[in-house]
Amino acid sequence: MLGAAAKKDFANGETLSTALGELSAKLGQKVVMSRAVREQHANITTFLPNEPADAVIMATCVEDVQTTVRICAAHNVPIIPWGAGTSLEGHVNAPYGGVCIDLSGMNRILKINTEDLDCVIEPGVTRKRLNEELRDQGLFFPIDPGADASLGGMASTRASGTNAVRYGTMKDNVIALKVVMPNGELITTSRRARKSSAGYDLTRLFIGAEGTLGIIVEITLKLYGIPESIVAGVCSFPTIADACNTVIQTIQCGIPVARIELLDEVQVRASNAYAKLTLPETPHLFLEFHGSETGAAEQAEMFAALAADNGGGPFASAEKPEDRTKLWQARHDAYWSVLPLRPGAKAVATDVCVPISRLAECVEATKTDIIEMGLIAPIVGHVGDGNFHTTLMVDVTDHSDVAKAEIFMKRLVERALAMEGTCTGEHGVGEGKKKYLYAEHGAGTLDAMHAIKTAFDPQNIMNPGKILPG
Amino acid sequence: MLGAAAKKDFANGETLSTALGELSAKLGQKVVMSRAVREQHANITTFLPNEPADAVIMATCVEDVQTTVRICAAHNVPIIPWGAGTSLEGHVNAPYGGVCIDLSGMNRILKINTEDLDCVIEPGVTRKRLNEELRDQGLFFPIDPGADASLGGMASTRASGTNAVRYGTMKDNVIALKVVMPNGELITTSRRARKSSAGYDLTRLFIGAEGTLGIIVEITLKLYGIPESIVAGVCSFPTIADACNTVIQTIQCGIPVARIELLDEVQVRASNAYAKLTLPETPHLFLEFHGSETGAAEQAEMFAALAADNGGGPFASAEKPEDRTKLWQARHDAYWSVLPLRPGAKAVATDVCVPISRLAECVEATKTDIIEMGLIAPIVGHVGDGNFHTTLMVDVTDHSDVAKAEIFMKRLVERALAMEGTCTGEHGVGEGKKKYLYAEHGAGTLDAMHAIKTAFDPQNIMNPGKILPG
Repeated sequence: MLGAAAKKDFANGETLSTALGELSAKLGQKVVMSRAVREQHANITTFLPNEPADAVIMATCVEDVQTTVRICAAHNVPIIPWGAGTSLEGHVNAPYGGVCIDLSGMNRILKINTEDLDCVIEPGVTRKRLNEELRDQGLFFPIDPGADASLGGMASTRASGTNAVRYGTMKDNVIALKVVMPNGELITTSRRARKSSAGYDLTRLFIGAEGTLGIIVEITLKLYGIPESIVAGVCSFPTIADACNTVIQTIQCGIPVARIELLDEVQVRASNAYAKLTLPETPHLFLEFHGSETGAAEQAEMFAALAADNGGGPFASAEKPEDRTKLWQARHDAYWSVLPLRPGAKAVATDVCVPISRLAECVEATKTDIIEMGLIAPIVGHVGDGNFHTTLMVDVTDHSDVAKAEIFMKRLVERALAMEGTCTGEHGVGEGKKKYLYAEHGAGTLDAMHAIKTAFDPQNIMNPGKILPG
Repeated sequence: MLGAAAKKDFANGETLSTALGELSAKLGQKVVMSRAVREQHANITTFLPNEPADAVIMATCVEDVQTTVRICAAHNVPIIPWGAGTSLEGHVNAPYGGVCIDLSGMNRILKINTEDLDCVIEPGVTRKRLNEELRDQGLFFPIDPGADASLGGMASTRASGTNAVRYGTMKDNVIALKVVMPNGELITTSRRARKSSAGYDLTRLFIGAEGTLGIIVEITLKLYGIPESIVAGVCSFPTIADACNTVIQTIQCGIPVARIELLDEVQVRASNAYAKLTLPETPHLFLEFHGSETGAAEQAEMFAALAADNGGGPFASAEKPEDRTKLWQARHDAYWSVLPLRPGAKAVATDVCVPISRLAECVEATKTDIIEMGLIAPIVGHVGDGNFHTTLMVDVTDHSDVAKAEIFMKRLVERALAMEGTCTGEHGVGEGKKKYLYAEHGAGTLDAMHAIKTAFDPQNIMNPGKILPG
């Protein structure tokens, strides 16, 4: 079945001009058409081409979004939502033109409910800004994808990151959403109560929908008390398998580890060179434990014992913030440390996720492939979830280099799928992973996704060309 | 907008006979038409009428489900999925006739993946049976709605229960589903990886859909290691507000309490009478702490201090299984202890859930209403989630008594909605709560739900008359 996602006869020429004219008449200087701004809003972190929209709308309120959507719907103009531009799979590209709606100006924190451990925010609030505002109240929002992404974007890509192993992903931490639907209507997906069984889970449907079903304009998030004690740890292992077995046992024992990150020896070597560190150049786990003073210390101790059983160690730990930062430096600098490995090349992140029992095997086979293909691609992994990234250095100006990267990525996805894994653990589909969805889900499941898309957005104006092949 | 959910021209007379004939030809003795069996499958735990289906299909495999759905789709016959018959809102009724598909025979545990902490099961497996199978492996599945429900039914109603405060609800503990769609096609909603951003979250869409979008035929569930130590606790409080404030502070402090249940003084009095206990007849919290030996003990100690700050105490705790069972007896017996309060009456459970900051106020106002209306309705609450149940004793043979109960329930829902709460925290909508969905969600949100229903099930054969008003 081909649904709305296959529809491509969008406004152009005179119709598009009419739509842009109406937008300018209603929204004035919020409509920006300069080439530089349009290209910046289609900034792509991979080798996908930059496909700018025809205009960028600098929205500052829900009404701006509704006005934009209604005018675009009337003229069949695509709408691409934009938060902070940190997406990794071409989500912000405009392959069929249209307007990009920049939500970064909708960045108010509307309410912090300390007793309920929740807050209500606009989608342009970034996670770092939110945590700055929360700190004085002893609260934090845990989801940390690395980049200072907008929370609207994080919801839309079902983002997670280093501490999903303990706190879950965006799907586990959003209580309710307000969404402007493809017809311009504003809906609320759920009440502020912590749980509900009152009908279909529209909240989770919009999380990970990448703006293809509607535009998120308000988010109610779960918050957490800042732990009394945070202990950071680093531990070296002889092999990836030893590190992975330690992770499996850690989770089986119920140690509520907050972060447990794998760096392969190639990444450790790069980090040593970049930050003048002296870590042994073997696979490492970087850890963080949250709890009471005794609780976090006990967790670290239990982990160290399991690591030793698996040939790991020594285990170094730290509790003071500055010492923790120092201990974790190799992990924090991972992305930057890779860039000097191939000057001029772009770092392209892969994102497969497999059941944790298959992780060591998947990482090892991928490393063999990297070596055999002569690629530069250090590995970091959110290993508690079975999710890992290779940071592949690609010369995006060299077609044969890009072609080689694509072969590597295809084989990596096929390997993960063969292990009951997914092509994307947390980055989303965008344009980049569309081609893998059939292999991942099969026809019937894609039919169901297409049916939802067609039901919500029969004109296919909401971020067309993303997620669904067709 | 009225979608598929409004459609009511289902097969009857000759068409229905043809369909039942085809089902018998294909499924033989799995098709049961005796009145007793049909009525038993529409057994209702409230004052809703018993509306039996025209036949019950005793399915034992996915093919039985597909055969049933295909024949029913061809003849426009409603299909009502049935798991263990423990639903509380008339989910298993057949208001338009049709066939009930009994999935209790699909009760195989297909795979337990200890390293990945997950398992793959058929929908008829009950939670107690699953936990019996898991115990030897040191694992458990935490969601505990009280009744020994089937896991298919629990997924379909987005069930939760006493330890959702720590382990979440069904939506947080299902990794993937296999579903027979309304056209008979079998789809898989997700891979077995712990997380994925690969397209729309169909898993969460079917969780809580109450069989109105398709029939769940396989479930991949998250599992947990049995904690090293479990400590049970009981604490008395002068008022509901004191108990609720203690709960708020407990959660703010990050004490990872596994269960935290409120019993009001009416419930405590009933429990004392039923089990010859001597608890002070004031509001109580019943608690459970999971962790390491020192961790669970520390949690209990921290809680006791907070309780004392709020005028609560003494706090009694126990660690040995038999002592824990004894300590929690009043909670375990809550339902049974209420029945003697009004012999011959039926216990009907309400299910609102509000933000926890509003819980004390909501419970107090409800108690005032109970007294003013002269009702018998003890209260138990999953207070960490803001969810509480009144166990309303209703003489279902007395119209005026039922009418009074309905007025009370309507006012309770309105009170919860005014506090940003929901009409159902965990029981689902079924037939009973349909009338509240418009007030809870508004027209636009219901339109979106109707659009999904119409897209998936244009004939409205999947459990018609449930969830969506129309």
